[in-house]
Parts: sequence; structure tokens; C-alpha cells
Amino acid sequence: MITLHTWTTPNGRKISIMLEELGIPYLIKTVNLIQGEQFSPAYQAISPTNKIPVLSDSGIDGRTITVFESGAILQYLAEKTGQLLPDHGADRYQVLEWLHWQTASLGPVLSQLVAESTNTHLADEADRLLGVMDRQLTRYTYMANEEYSIADIACYPWVAALRHAPALGSRPHLRRWINTLSSRAAVQRGMALPRLN
Amino acid sequence: MITLHTWTTPNGRKISIMLEELGIPYLIKTVNLIQGEQFSPAYQAISPTNKIPVLSDSGIDGRTITVFESGAILQYLAEKTGQLLPDHGADRYQVLEWLHWQTASLGPVLSQLVAESTNTHLADEADRLLGVMDRQLTRYTYMANEEYSIADIACYPWVAALRHAPALGSRPHLRRWINTLSSRAAVQRGMALPRLN
Ligand SMILES: N[C@@H](CCC(=O)N[C@@H](CS)C(=O)NCC(=O)O)C(=O)O
Ligand SMILES: N[C@@H](CCC(=O)N[C@@H](CS)C(=O)NCC(=O)O)C(=O)O
Repeated sequence: MITLHTWTTPNGRKISIMLEELGIPYLIKTVNLIQGEQFSPAYQAISPTNKIPVLSDSGIDGRTITVFESGAILQYLAEKTGQLLPDHGADRYQVLEWLHWQTASLGPVLSQLVAESTNTHLADEADRLLGVMDRQLTRYTYMANEEYSIADIACYPWVAALRHAPALGSRPHLRRWINTLSSRAAVQRGMALPRLN
Repeated sequence: MITLHTWTTPNGRKISIMLEELGIPYLIKTVNLIQGEQFSPAYQAISPTNKIPVLSDSGIDGRTITVFESGAILQYLAEKTGQLLPDHGADRYQVLEWLHWQTASLGPVLSQLVAESTNTHLADEADRLLGVMDRQLTRYTYMANEEYSIADIACYPWVAALRHAPALGSRPHLRRWINTLSSRAAVQRGMALPRLN
């Protein structure tokens, strides 16, 4: 069985979207970041960097495999199922380069901007990165190429909130892509997780 | 033939180290970041994010494959040669999680700290990340596990400069790992590239 350790934040939602796209069964365990549960010794044992998401999968030859870092988890699930990441050739590396671009550039810059919303240097860099996305989406339907992939899933939760932002006025391709992803049922279900009670 | 587009900075050196470890022939083309060559239209055609490194490989069925993002390039080279990244199982995802951790956390924080050396929030976060590395290296010889991998190659150019830093006084495992990597001939050769003339 697969268990996703997550919270109501973009890096966690990448993985709930992926699991919904794959349609495989899984459990969700919430890690309350506000109460600092990411720092408990039990959680640190599976998340050495004290972050969500973490995925554990006990279905592998009776042994449990545990993966942290959203980029590595997306790749794990894609390779386990043979979906949303080609297994060789130029198409594969088009997906991996945009996946790494999201985790290395878009994610860190947008998450810092949430914390420091008045930092104009960060706002300029975020705007430049959205321009890079729009330019790529002028050439292709999806982030990597003509196929929907884990690169799209990685980028979506970070830019979904911008749907009505003025910055998108001059970025029609990025807006088109956001609308395309927003209309996928699996994306809608994944974005609504985890449910808190 | 493989061509590496690079400059004298850590993300480029990850790839020159990797190529030296693999011992395969390659050419180097410098992209002078100080003169802004990363923004030329010709370079942007292969680097949509205007960054180094980029790797192109014309040996694939007569077609040229071009890859940007250091994490994706390391994976491309590892999968092309079957080296420094296991092709399945828990070992594979141990490498990929630390590779993503480097590109998503360690790299962005240390590179920002170079630009804003008086920012105490960044300095604290860098220190926390070095603590995460030291803790991992207490359990294992290398970043992912007992095997040298692309996760080590990704981390090394960013922390190599810290060899004599006071922060390492309390981090004996990180220091041991830096010394181990520093003594590899391929690492020494890769760190000396590109040569400028
Ligand atoms: N590079 C990591 C980043 C993970 C991350 O930053 N997670 C945030 C939530 S979106 C977190 O756990 N924050 C808790 C904390 O920093 O204490 C990934 O992509 O998985
Ligand atoms: N996430 C990218 C980062 C690449 C990067 O930041 N490269 C720097 C040099 S180490 C660069 O090209 N800077 C030029 C610029 O920002 O204009 C990777 O890992 O390849």
C-alpha cells in the first residue's frame, strides 16, 4: 500500500494530483506543518530534511520503500507505473529538464515570494520565470512537449493560484495551460487534498 | 560527440566532474556569464532559461539531443552509460532524492548566500542544510548510501569551498566526505574546468 505524508501546500499537492492521475489506491497521512509535526523524531526518520511530501510504498517485494523530495517521488511513481514520463529518448529528458526547472527555480522563488511578498527582486525573478513558462508553452501544448507529463504536474500547484492575476494578461499561453490543467478531474481531486477534519 | 556549455561556476562543474568520472570524450564551449552570453538568441535556443550548464550529444542515432538543468544532465549521462545511478530499486530513489534535494534546496540557498552574504536568515538556512548533510553522512559513506553517485557529484562543487570553514569543526562527517571527494582525480580535473584563455 502507498501512503502519502502531506499537508495543504503545493509540494504535497503535486503528489496527490499524480496519485489521482494514476488512479492507484493510497492512504493520506497529514503532517501538520503549523504544529511543527515535520520536526518530530518519528517523521524525521522518513524525512531527513523535515519537509513534506514523503511517500512510502510497502508493495515492493515485501519491503517498504520511502521517498522524499517531490521531484524524486514523481519520478518514482512514473517509473513504477510506466506513465507520464517516457522511459528513454529525447522526450524523457524534455520532461526531466522541466521537472528539475520547477523544483530548482520556480518552486524556490515562488515559495520565497509567499514569505517575502514585498521583495521586488524576488517579484521580478518570479515574473521572469513565468515568462520562461509562457515562452515554452508558445511552442508546445504542455511543459515538456506535446504530451502531458510529471513536468506539468510539478508546475501546476505553484501557478494555479495565478489564474486571475494581472501578470497573465500578457501571457495567453500560460493562461491556456492553467485552464487545461484546471479542467482535469484528477487535478481537481488532487488539489482538494488533504482534507482536514 | 558530447559538448558541454559551461562556465567557472558550481552548476557547470557538476557536469565536468561527471564527464571526467565517466572518462568519455567531450568538448567544452564556454558561455561567458559576465559578458551576458547566456542571453544571446543562439544560446537561448538551447537554454530556454538562460543558464549554464547545457549538454548536447550528437551521437544518438544521428540526431542531437540537448539537455539543460544540471540535475537532468547528470541523470541523462548516468542513464546513457549505466553508471553512478542504479537503474531500479530503493538504491535508485535514494540517489534521486538527494539529487533533487541538492538542486531544490542546497543549491538555491548557497547560491543566494553568495549574492547576499549578510542575510542572516539565509546563513541560518545554509547552516541547517549543512547539518542535514552531516547527519546523512553519519549514517552512510556517501550522500545516498554506501555507493558514490550523481548525488555526491551534485553536492560537491557547492560545499568544496567550505573545506576550511569553521562551520565544519562540528561536522566531522561532512568534512570527511569533502576530503574523500577532493582526493578523486576526476573530481580534481572536473573542478579545474573550464580553462579560460
Ligand atoms: N524541495 C522539496 C521542498 C519541500 C517543501 O518545501 N515542503 C514544504 C511544504 S510545501 C514544507 O514541508 N515546509 C515545512 C518546513 O519548512 O518546516 C520538495 O520539492 O519536496
Ligand atoms: N537549476 C539550474 C541552475 C543553473 C544556474 O543557476 N546556473 C548559473 C551558474 S552556476 C547561471 O547560469 N547563471 C547565469 C545567470 O543567472 O544569468 C541547474 O542546476 O542547472
